[in-house]
Amino acid sequence: MPEIEILERHRVFGGELAFVRHDSAAVAGPMTFSIFVPDGEGPFPVLYWLSGLTCSANNFTEKAGAYRRASQRGLIVVAPDTSPRGAAVPDDPAADLGQGAGFYVDATQAPWKAHFQMETYVTHDLIAAVEANFPADPGRRGLSGHSMGGHGALTLALNHAHLYRSVSAFAPIACAMRSPWGIKALTAYLGADHTAWERYSAATLIAAGTVKAFDDILIDQGRADPYIASHLVPEQLEHAAATSGQTLSLRYHDGFDHSYYFVQSFIDDHIDFHADRLAQLKDHVAHVAA
Amino acid sequence: MPEIEILERHRVFGGELAFVRHDSAAVAGPMTFSIFVPDGEGPFPVLYWLSGLTCSANNFTEKAGAYRRASQRGLIVVAPDTSPRGAAVPDDPAADLGQGAGFYVDATQAPWKAHFQMETYVTHDLIAAVEANFPADPGRRGLSGHSMGGHGALTLALNHAHLYRSVSAFAPIACAMRSPWGIKALTAYLGADHTAWERYSAATLIAAGTVKAFDDILIDQGRADPYIASHLVPEQLEHAAATSGQTLSLRYHDGFDHSYYFVQSFIDDHIDFHADRLAQLKDHVAHVAA
Repeated sequence: MPEIEILERHRVFGGELAFVRHDSAAVAGPMTFSIFVPDGEGPFPVLYWLSGLTCSANNFTEKAGAYRRASQRGLIVVAPDTSPRGAAVPDDPAADLGQGAGFYVDATQAPWKAHFQMETYVTHDLIAAVEANFPADPGRRGLSGHSMGGHGALTLALNHAHLYRSVSAFAPIACAMRSPWGIKALTAYLGADHTAWERYSAATLIAAGTVKAFDDILIDQGRADPYIASHLVPEQLEHAAATSGQTLSLRYHDGFDHSYYFVQSFIDDHIDFHADRLAQLKDHVAHVAA
Repeated sequence: MPEIEILERHRVFGGELAFVRHDSAAVAGPMTFSIFVPDGEGPFPVLYWLSGLTCSANNFTEKAGAYRRASQRGLIVVAPDTSPRGAAVPDDPAADLGQGAGFYVDATQAPWKAHFQMETYVTHDLIAAVEANFPADPGRRGLSGHSMGGHGALTLALNHAHLYRSVSAFAPIACAMRSPWGIKALTAYLGADHTAWERYSAATLIAAGTVKAFDDILIDQGRADPYIASHLVPEQLEHAAATSGQTLSLRYHDGFDHSYYFVQSFIDDHIDFHADRLAQLKDHVAHVAA
């Protein structure tokens, strides 16, 4: 069983929130995540949340206001850090590279490749730690995230569709290959050859249409987001979905910006989006078993 | 009109949140507060929130999850900083004195008295800035807070009952005169003479019973709060209320601690408690005018 260390525990709404540290083989060091577990027996469906640039496990946990609705819907919610941390881990003085900016890729370039294996961390080590230590149902996982983490949610769900049953995002980087943030990070982590970048572009994956594992993808985007035209470019997702026929519910919201004030305003809808789909799976599995 | 400077604006739920800086004569310098204003015409009732030790205007604003319900109920919510700040303001290296620890008193002792006039700030300068610049109804003000701010809410509402129509608290310091935090702060700010302290003890004011302006006082307290026995002592409020006949709804909650995870879990009840009372006043005023 992957061992974990509980750093903090807090009762919140109808459940318990914990901050957890554990060793990850993928990133060759310790990682932290928060986990909300509702009261009751379980096993519960799990929503994994991937955060944006500069975030730790704390930002979503403290600011998103997710646990009221998660408690009502009986959903575990897990929010990992956005990269490995510490003196042994390479870093960059800029906010968009290195610690706090893992971009949810497996790096192939020095000095990053020894620790920046965030795709494998999220899709393997994190899931293993959660499912071995908490009442999480392995058959019912959803994935969401914000900004860089919205890019992470879309690309990891599409590349690992056997692992996740629902996916959504807030203000995602639609195409990391064309976003200044993404170009900088992918060049550093994967090198200059763009063929290695394509599997980390949400719009490219949706347009390819080889995976249609998801009946719908919910995306919320604020129209007053200062990064919408330069870094996020949500219309790329609309074009990609139209190309492949993927159903995509992209909602624009007047006046909302890129902050967690935007995220908290619509988090209940995302909790419901995932809980509805993951609950149906429970019914389906129960039906097949009977 | 008291001038204000808007530092940040964010749309959140059905309204707008702003961080504001303004000059306060009481504290002889700038102060900051956050304010949530729901959509619509107003004038709206206003809930003032007083935060605890070490807090700025950010803690409640980012972590309490209050704006969903405030938006639904049409309530303005104002959260000021807990003291004046800056190089010109006296401070103490401890977390429970000086900047971030104003205790909502008007200091009479050097070096504090020039700036630490938080009672006058909250009850005069803050109200004036809010009501001159936002669609706030002067007839409908509520007051709440957490820990040191719960002490502030209770003592300021009882000492200025003509200003506030509803009061509640989370995990308040029930009697600052007997709490180690309070004894340290009151000694520094008011001097060693305990007669000057009595008007800053919530339990003493409730027991005196000279003011029964409030039909009820709602107080929530976590049973897993590490400060409950040493610093907060909520049973002093129950004894005081029994002495004077003040109605007090003190609710204990198993498992909850002193953090904003506790506050967010019950903030909707406090929003409703204040909105219910302040809405009734509107009907009453309208009825009298008609």
